[in-house]
Amino acid sequence: MRFVVIGGDAAGMSAASRFKRNMPDSEVIVLEQSNDVSYSACGMPYNIADPDRELDDLVVRKAEVFRSKQGIDLRTGHRAEVIDREDHSVQGVGERGEPFEIHYDKLLIATGASPIIPDLPGFDLDGVMALKTLEDGRKIKSFIRSRGVKSVVIIGMGYIALEMCEAFRELDIEVNMVKPRPVFLPWMHPDLSRVVQEETERHGVNLHLGLDIKAIEKGHDHLLNVVCEGIALQGHMVLVAMGVTPNSRMAADAGLELGPEGAISVDRSLRTSDPDIFSAGDCADAYHVVTGQKTWIPLALRANRAGWGVADTLAGKPVNLKGVAGTAVFKVFDLEVARTGLSLKEAQTAGFHPVEVAIKAPSRAHAHPGSTTLYSEMVADQGSGRLLGGQLVGLEGAVHRINALAVALHQRMTVREFSQCDLAYAPPFSPVWDPLLTTANQLLKKVTP
Amino acid sequence: MRFVVIGGDAAGMSAASRFKRNMPDSEVIVLEQSNDVSYSACGMPYNIADPDRELDDLVVRKAEVFRSKQGIDLRTGHRAEVIDREDHSVQGVGERGEPFEIHYDKLLIATGASPIIPDLPGFDLDGVMALKTLEDGRKIKSFIRSRGVKSVVIIGMGYIALEMCEAFRELDIEVNMVKPRPVFLPWMHPDLSRVVQEETERHGVNLHLGLDIKAIEKGHDHLLNVVCEGIALQGHMVLVAMGVTPNSRMAADAGLELGPEGAISVDRSLRTSDPDIFSAGDCADAYHVVTGQKTWIPLALRANRAGWGVADTLAGKPVNLKGVAGTAVFKVFDLEVARTGLSLKEAQTAGFHPVEVAIKAPSRAHAHPGSTTLYSEMVADQGSGRLLGGQLVGLEGAVHRINALAVALHQRMTVREFSQCDLAYAPPFSPVWDPLLTTANQLLKKVTP
Repeated sequence: MRFVVIGGDAAGMSAASRFKRNMPDSEVIVLEQSNDVSYSACGMPYNIADPDRELDDLVVRKAEVFRSKQGIDLRTGHRAEVIDREDHSVQGVGERGEPFEIHYDKLLIATGASPIIPDLPGFDLDGVMALKTLEDGRKIKSFIRSRGVKSVVIIGMGYIALEMCEAFRELDIEVNMVKPRPVFLPWMHPDLSRVVQEETERHGVNLHLGLDIKAIEKGHDHLLNVVCEGIALQGHMVLVAMGVTPNSRMAADAGLELGPEGAISVDRSLRTSDPDIFSAGDCADAYHVVTGQKTWIPLALRANRAGWGVADTLAGKPVNLKGVAGTAVFKVFDLEVARTGLSLKEAQTAGFHPVEVAIKAPSRAHAHPGSTTLYSEMVADQGSGRLLGGQLVGLEGAVHRINALAVALHQRMTVREFSQCDLAYAPPFSPVWDPLLTTANQLLKKVTP
Repeated sequence: MRFVVIGGDAAGMSAASRFKRNMPDSEVIVLEQSNDVSYSACGMPYNIADPDRELDDLVVRKAEVFRSKQGIDLRTGHRAEVIDREDHSVQGVGERGEPFEIHYDKLLIATGASPIIPDLPGFDLDGVMALKTLEDGRKIKSFIRSRGVKSVVIIGMGYIALEMCEAFRELDIEVNMVKPRPVFLPWMHPDLSRVVQEETERHGVNLHLGLDIKAIEKGHDHLLNVVCEGIALQGHMVLVAMGVTPNSRMAADAGLELGPEGAISVDRSLRTSDPDIFSAGDCADAYHVVTGQKTWIPLALRANRAGWGVADTLAGKPVNLKGVAGTAVFKVFDLEVARTGLSLKEAQTAGFHPVEVAIKAPSRAHAHPGSTTLYSEMVADQGSGRLLGGQLVGLEGAVHRINALAVALHQRMTVREFSQCDLAYAPPFSPVWDPLLTTANQLLKKVTP
């Protein structure tokens, strides 16, 4: 039995490794177009911020180890281009430009996602960069070093934009951030997003909201001009961080079904519309545990879990993945930012009748030194009382607290049930009523008893 | 309708306040034997550690506020002594030693718990102290100041003993800790308790395990000798922190049913065996959500929640409290220590067939700076795969992570279900697979598929 994997990052290598452990006598071939496999992509902003570290520190397991210790036929520099489902084969181009054709019994498409680059003039200029692969990270870091970058324009204000903004500020680089939409973090309750916005501005970042971007042009002194309506923002470098899109074209060309946002549609065992082809990671869709509907949320844990799921399903232990809760956390300078489940608007769109509360609570007990303000939001369905989502922002205790809410969403708990949970209390860590419970207690007043 | 409350701390004042809000026209009388109500008892060790703060900083709401703003007839210095159930009355002794008798329609017993003081010679000597009430805290702090305490012997090694040990070390006081049992934290997995023990010893605390205590004697130079088998430990002060026992004698004398460890037995609406008498807080028992059986775990959140529950039940909105998960967290110097649910031994005693794993995991992502080791333990029932409990120890992220597990216990989740949860990941906060998930994935191998 030959298992072929297209894509050697989180999902692909997780699947390949676990499959080989499950079925040591099988053949596993991984086709990876770059020379990098199995690295911590999410760690790149922090690595770029530190001049003393190399990007290769982020490699979790080297290609050689997969080959020699794990017996995986890992072919880097191999770009898959066409899937022939009838022939059960993959065609592409190898390291030295030579064409290849490989037959598979089972195939995994783990091609990931790519940054969205708008079709506007100047986005191909030298110094206009995006961050997705380790090679992107190397290019950005080396560009900063070699060109003596003093100023950057970031297009976009999502997670990666904000993490990179922090990295640039660590390096004492001036940062202008710009995006077309007028709202800072549109999925976030305004009381919470205001706190994140102020933290960003407090660190000297210039935010330009609601500006349409027209083009990027070369300016004087190695500067680039990001031309917007009525203003041009200048920087030695432009980072395009406008989100990502699933790499699903090869799958679509092969006639596989696509799901939300063009991601490859898979069932709870990671199988595509072709029973011999699986998909996992940022290129594939998933079920959302709150809506029960398909969604596309490209994050690392899901990719790793789906990779394992493919390996187990192929080994005759079919998984039945419950799906994602939409948990996402990030650091913005000194702040922890966390969310899980649906925002108020997402809940409305999904057909719920949501009610919402947003509160401020102390992070530690009454009169305990060092207490700061934790901002907490929760959404529930008015009629059923079911919890639908939550958001937390604060200097401490936001990120790990969100996990309690994520578990509650997986279990379809009501606000009332959640409000009865025996959560942790000690003065250095929380008030007697944890902010999560205080939020739930407030929300309880808004749902039908 | 007259609602009488015996005891003016967490449970009693929560009940009184909420009842008065629920039913503004009713009469609420609170009988509190001390002059302190509504204070953060758990904050006392941290307050004692700081010479610049007064114990009264821990008062959350002053007696005057309850009286003038909330219309509660709060009688401090009133010690209830006898409950006459037939007569629906409480008899006791007032502020100036005068007897009183008060009739009730509904009664709440919220008498709390008292430190266990062994019946051995010398435990009544000057300088032998226990910490439970705010007045105890004042006495200890004032004793340290006025006597220039340089050394302390702590009898016991539970939460309060360890928190006070940290407070004494902050004040540069030499600490000897002693207890009869030979194991440091007997409910904890040895890999985890060893870490806590080493952290304690690293801060210069001398631990004496497995020593029977015979007496306390006066020594030279204002020192006290704690006489053990073969050794005498000396200190200017002795703190007795051997645990607490429920103040249930008055209830027992009145013929009310008692539960585990002599706590007052209550149903899920906080009603005792007498339908007109309720009990809440450290003096009452509760259901354990894992075993479904009665238990006695005296902690602050449960007391507050039960106080509210009494008020709501009396207001015609009867509560149906699910119970406690046994969540408890504390700080030991730089370490966060957390538990929820059952230990391996407790699970065996409760009739489960438990399996257990204990692992070490990094607190942050691969190659992320500042990562430390998180120690994680989990217990499940082998046959059903149901999660039964967990423990976490680490320099960061132990306390708030335990909440996810607590929610899982409330929901009777299996390890498999928990292992599928969409928990938070970002490099500064956790590895891709959160330590909780890694532990669950390991435990999954030990339960019946």
